[in-house]
Amino acid sequence: MVSPGMDQSSTPLRGIINDVKGRASCYRQDWISGCHSGFSILAPTMYIFFASALPVIAFGEQLSKETDGALSTVETLASTAICGILHSILGGQPMLIVGVAEPTVIMYTYLYNFAKGREDLGARLYLAWAGWVCFWTACMLFLLAIFNASDIISRFTRIAGELFGMLITVLFMQEAIKGIVSEFNIPKGEDQTQPIYQFEWLYTNGLLGIVFAFGLLFTALKSRRARAWRYGTGWLRGFIADYGVPLMVLLWTAMSYAVPSKVPSGVPRRLFSPLPWEAKSLYHWTVAKDMLSVPPLYIFAAIVPALMVAGLYFFDHSVASQMAQQKEFNLKNPSAYHYDILVLGFMAREMSKFVLACGLLGIPPSNGVLPQSPMHTKSLAVLKRRIMRKKMVESAKESIRQQASNSEIYGKMQEVFVKMDKGPTVISIDTELKNLKDAVMNNGAGGEDSKVAFDPEKHIDAYLPVRVNEQRVTNLLQSLLVGACLGAMPIIKMIPTSVLWGYFAYMAIDSLPGNQFWERTLFLLVTPSRRYKVLEGMHASFMESVPFRKIAAFTILQFVYLLVCFGVTWIPIAGILFPLPFFLLISIRQHILPKFFHQHHLWELDAAEYDEIAGTPRRARSLSFGEGEASQSNRDDNDADMCDAEILDDLTTSRGELKHRTKSFNDDRFQQVGICSSMPNCSSFHVFSLSWFDAYLLYPMQIYPEVSQQRS
Amino acid sequence: MVSPGMDQSSTPLRGIINDVKGRASCYRQDWISGCHSGFSILAPTMYIFFASALPVIAFGEQLSKETDGALSTVETLASTAICGILHSILGGQPMLIVGVAEPTVIMYTYLYNFAKGREDLGARLYLAWAGWVCFWTACMLFLLAIFNASDIISRFTRIAGELFGMLITVLFMQEAIKGIVSEFNIPKGEDQTQPIYQFEWLYTNGLLGIVFAFGLLFTALKSRRARAWRYGTGWLRGFIADYGVPLMVLLWTAMSYAVPSKVPSGVPRRLFSPLPWEAKSLYHWTVAKDMLSVPPLYIFAAIVPALMVAGLYFFDHSVASQMAQQKEFNLKNPSAYHYDILVLGFMAREMSKFVLACGLLGIPPSNGVLPQSPMHTKSLAVLKRRIMRKKMVESAKESIRQQASNSEIYGKMQEVFVKMDKGPTVISIDTELKNLKDAVMNNGAGGEDSKVAFDPEKHIDAYLPVRVNEQRVTNLLQSLLVGACLGAMPIIKMIPTSVLWGYFAYMAIDSLPGNQFWERTLFLLVTPSRRYKVLEGMHASFMESVPFRKIAAFTILQFVYLLVCFGVTWIPIAGILFPLPFFLLISIRQHILPKFFHQHHLWELDAAEYDEIAGTPRRARSLSFGEGEASQSNRDDNDADMCDAEILDDLTTSRGELKHRTKSFNDDRFQQVGICSSMPNCSSFHVFSLSWFDAYLLYPMQIYPEVSQQRS
Repeated sequence: MVSPGMDQSSTPLRGIINDVKGRASCYRQDWISGCHSGFSILAPTMYIFFASALPVIAFGEQLSKETDGALSTVETLASTAICGILHSILGGQPMLIVGVAEPTVIMYTYLYNFAKGREDLGARLYLAWAGWVCFWTACMLFLLAIFNASDIISRFTRIAGELFGMLITVLFMQEAIKGIVSEFNIPKGEDQTQPIYQFEWLYTNGLLGIVFAFGLLFTALKSRRARAWRYGTGWLRGFIADYGVPLMVLLWTAMSYAVPSKVPSGVPRRLFSPLPWEAKSLYHWTVAKDMLSVPPLYIFAAIVPALMVAGLYFFDHSVASQMAQQKEFNLKNPSAYHYDILVLGFMAREMSKFVLACGLLGIPPSNGVLPQSPMHTKSLAVLKRRIMRKKMVESAKESIRQQASNSEIYGKMQEVFVKMDKGPTVISIDTELKNLKDAVMNNGAGGEDSKVAFDPEKHIDAYLPVRVNEQRVTNLLQSLLVGACLGAMPIIKMIPTSVLWGYFAYMAIDSLPGNQFWERTLFLLVTPSRRYKVLEGMHASFMESVPFRKIAAFTILQFVYLLVCFGVTWIPIAGILFPLPFFLLISIRQHILPKFFHQHHLWELDAAEYDEIAGTPRRARSLSFGEGEASQSNRDDNDADMCDAEILDDLTTSRGELKHRTKSFNDDRFQQVGICSSMPNCSSFHVFSLSWFDAYLLYPMQIYPEVSQQRS
Repeated sequence: MVSPGMDQSSTPLRGIINDVKGRASCYRQDWISGCHSGFSILAPTMYIFFASALPVIAFGEQLSKETDGALSTVETLASTAICGILHSILGGQPMLIVGVAEPTVIMYTYLYNFAKGREDLGARLYLAWAGWVCFWTACMLFLLAIFNASDIISRFTRIAGELFGMLITVLFMQEAIKGIVSEFNIPKGEDQTQPIYQFEWLYTNGLLGIVFAFGLLFTALKSRRARAWRYGTGWLRGFIADYGVPLMVLLWTAMSYAVPSKVPSGVPRRLFSPLPWEAKSLYHWTVAKDMLSVPPLYIFAAIVPALMVAGLYFFDHSVASQMAQQKEFNLKNPSAYHYDILVLGFMAREMSKFVLACGLLGIPPSNGVLPQSPMHTKSLAVLKRRIMRKKMVESAKESIRQQASNSEIYGKMQEVFVKMDKGPTVISIDTELKNLKDAVMNNGAGGEDSKVAFDPEKHIDAYLPVRVNEQRVTNLLQSLLVGACLGAMPIIKMIPTSVLWGYFAYMAIDSLPGNQFWERTLFLLVTPSRRYKVLEGMHASFMESVPFRKIAAFTILQFVYLLVCFGVTWIPIAGILFPLPFFLLISIRQHILPKFFHQHHLWELDAAEYDEIAGTPRRARSLSFGEGEASQSNRDDNDADMCDAEILDDLTTSRGELKHRTKSFNDDRFQQVGICSSMPNCSSFHVFSLSWFDAYLLYPMQIYPEVSQQRS
């Protein structure tokens, strides 16, 4: 868990070699176990496919609008599909999902605006020049991988990640607003005399845009929460929660065809994109030959944006990978957290290969995406659980029928579990299955707990540890499906653009809950007399252990910094340097902030691995599904399958991040501050929530043990 | 509390005479105490004015649409203002607010459709004929008043009231949908060749209608909940919660002027109404002379609708009056509940006078309205509380300064209280002030509670009993303001019609929470595995004490009955008989339902006074503001004023009805059913919520003591 000292990591290629060795040992198994799952593997595949295809389509439309159609949905889909296939076959961690993400789109927009403004470059050589940016990016990523740069990833803290996540949220919202406003205007480069660009139809188009965008936003936000609904069967609720957003896109697209036939075609506007087999798209496959036409000056100037892109990709990809391997998922790879830092080197090398491939093809490169990567792991955990539970219940029932003793029953069950759980684990199986064993053994022991008879269905359900169906098949299949979307472009083009602007607003709003920066900002706005209400509900520990004044100072600082970062994105050409403030923030956090904030307060507000005192390893407790048990006692059998997903839903934020929070309002919270400052290691107050996607960059993967456990 | 036997009530005029005597004794005081309050009386006045003007405007627009402009907002406002002024001066209970309500609008629509279809009547004599309906209605109400019909009001139970409330909700929703659809069509009788009725502008008008209607609906629903927000100062939250809906109408009306100037005037459509000083409106003052032109056959045919109108008005007016005098408000009138039944006779006579006046003027009559009447009492309770608290805190602080003994302090405070609380009360002051006395006395008693020192601000706040500033000034002023709206018609006409359709949808949705019929219907739709979630939250007692099968049967019966009632309203001319099923339901409830449902289950599902065992008077406990104390301990002084309103908000449903619910999930709830059926009087499980407005007709005002009190 403690990252290795720099002395160890100085050997070039060390990380890559280790990673290749590590993954090679399980590569064969990755394919075999995927194929063994049969048709049940299709559920997580479809889930991830829809989760990753929709943003790629939206980003494609944004890119098309920003680059006057030089790049469009065809290219983003193609990139996601190609990179996804390459990654699932050649990549290290198959849990990781790759795709075109927002930072890529922003970068490509800056590149386009820069290229367009240069006479000797122009829109014509834009893609060729972008190819050079990718070339340099790949070189840098190679270097980063070779020199084990992934080791330093743990130096990054929550503040930078949440700030970046918030910037992305603000940019999403800006895109949504710009998009809706654009529905009222004539698109650039269109013939203004066309009937659909006369005022009455422009205005109608705008109004329809408002209806569709807000309609999608509202229904998508509602459907996300479907699993907690009281109405409908478990299956239906689960289906709506998992596929609600694509369903709503479908619904609103269908609604857009309910417009009366008297409205001229072209109102409402729909996705603008050439078909993959049209000349404009086919040009992309010939960009490579144009690359040498780029003036040498610009070839070298491409190093500047490449630096930014390489930096962004390095972190973005790493965070996605880390999030997909959160300790609680109990991945089989032996060193779930530390090994992951090592594997990043290999990942970076892999990614640069994609960048190289994609850049040369003139399409934007893909990198690891959030929240899809952890969603992938989560859906595979649910799948594994269903398979395991079924077999273990069968075994237990069989043993009970044969009137076996309790230890025999447990022995059989453990056997089944061990058989299905090949590969080393961090925590010994004995520890993990302790609760289950107790449940079985208490049955006949006659002790004080003997009232609770062992019920295979119920107890296995409650005490089964989390395991993930680790394989490469889902990743490959979903990439192939994204590729198949290219063939379905004529259907995808039926989506009204306004639905996508609503989708941007949805992504922005949906990313807010769980982002501590956002929660702290809201907390500042709560009137003093209502603050107790926040403390009565779920809240992170810092609310109790850090004085309000300090929380306010920290949050205002972060907010001002956000404004600065947002301001930078508005600078015409230098805006491309927008990741710089984030890189800068890392050194501010390390060297300047500790001068103004007490170390423990900083630790609470901004968890950072290097704040941890060496030599006190914190082992994340094994997460079992049993935590949701109490609230499930009334559920019927039909709901059992759905509940697997629901429990994980309850344990994670809307972005899939695992929550560690207490719902306890301590009157002695001011006392605690005193205790905290006088204790060298006040780990007992650590209850916090890491945030994915919204916390777009990264922060250490260290999950501290939950407060309530230590307290009780 | 037990309604008098029929033997006592057989004397004609008895009720009226008693009422006149009762009110005459406090009539002078009603005006004096109103004037004594000074400017602070303006807050409840404005609150009630906005709450009553907006629905009247909306109903006016509905009426205008349904009667091809024969009646419009001018007439509904005029009726509300005139009846309001008359009632505030001549009426019995000044807490009651009168206005044109939805049943009136529905009735007048049927009358119009009937008249329009008759050659010898036609749209021309519509108002004259409606005048005859009013004449007969007045006669019948006179008879009802003379023969003490109000005595039987307690025979009506929740089932009819909630069903009627639900029907009104469905009709509101139907009106909202019809309204929005009509925005896409050319209004009846308009010149189809006008440019604004060409397809492009019709369609634009419709889309703007959708945006404004949904915009209003969404923002109005959000602003209603403002008092519970965490953000903003208490004053701002209170202001938004009290005036949010009119503010939102203002906001969306302003937005409708943000439409680009290229859109022709007339898009979006705005309120259609002649100005009060135009010829069309002035005609109404001459209707009386047309009344004799109505053919004699129709004069007598008018008795049929008059029967329905009289029935509706009788109950509607009574419920509004009862709701304004809920026992917990501690009105000074000595016999708060029983006296109220008596006063209804007088009220009915009063009302018929209005009907006579209004009918002869050719404008629709007004009757007591919900939820404005209880809102009126509530706002006056808040006002009285502020004044009382201020004076009592002053007195206590003065005594403490003079180092008076505890009993002296309490004596002074009681003196102040008694002085301000003129008139007899049901519960003795000693009982009501017991908690406050204890708080003062414990201070120096040295007993076990002595830790808690007496704090004037805190303890007076917590233990001050509810008192209402009973007077006639607010009622008169708000009626005058409604009348002033007639002068402001040019401004009111700026409201887009679509905003009013949104307002109808808002009224429909806002009336649902608290309606037990609605809550039971939802409960049926909850999947069996999720029912425990309902029981974990706030819920009425029947959920625990009545078997699910019985709840389902009762609810399905009610639902089918609702469908029948809704179906009746669709019958072209016989639809005017739509109140009949409700009158019928009363005898169904009394004679048929007890054969299918156990008496105790029926009692739980449908509280009815005659189910109560005579001789066991149930005295509603005195409601003090102290119940919200625990959750207010952190509030600051600025919030204190706002909290008065907030506590009452917490205690009441969104329609102002007082809630009596527990939040306890009893595992032994099935056991209870057994106990319940074997006990002759299982009052201990009674925790339920009466519903206003939404439960439009009525049910007995009996408030049972709360479960939790008896249990603990």
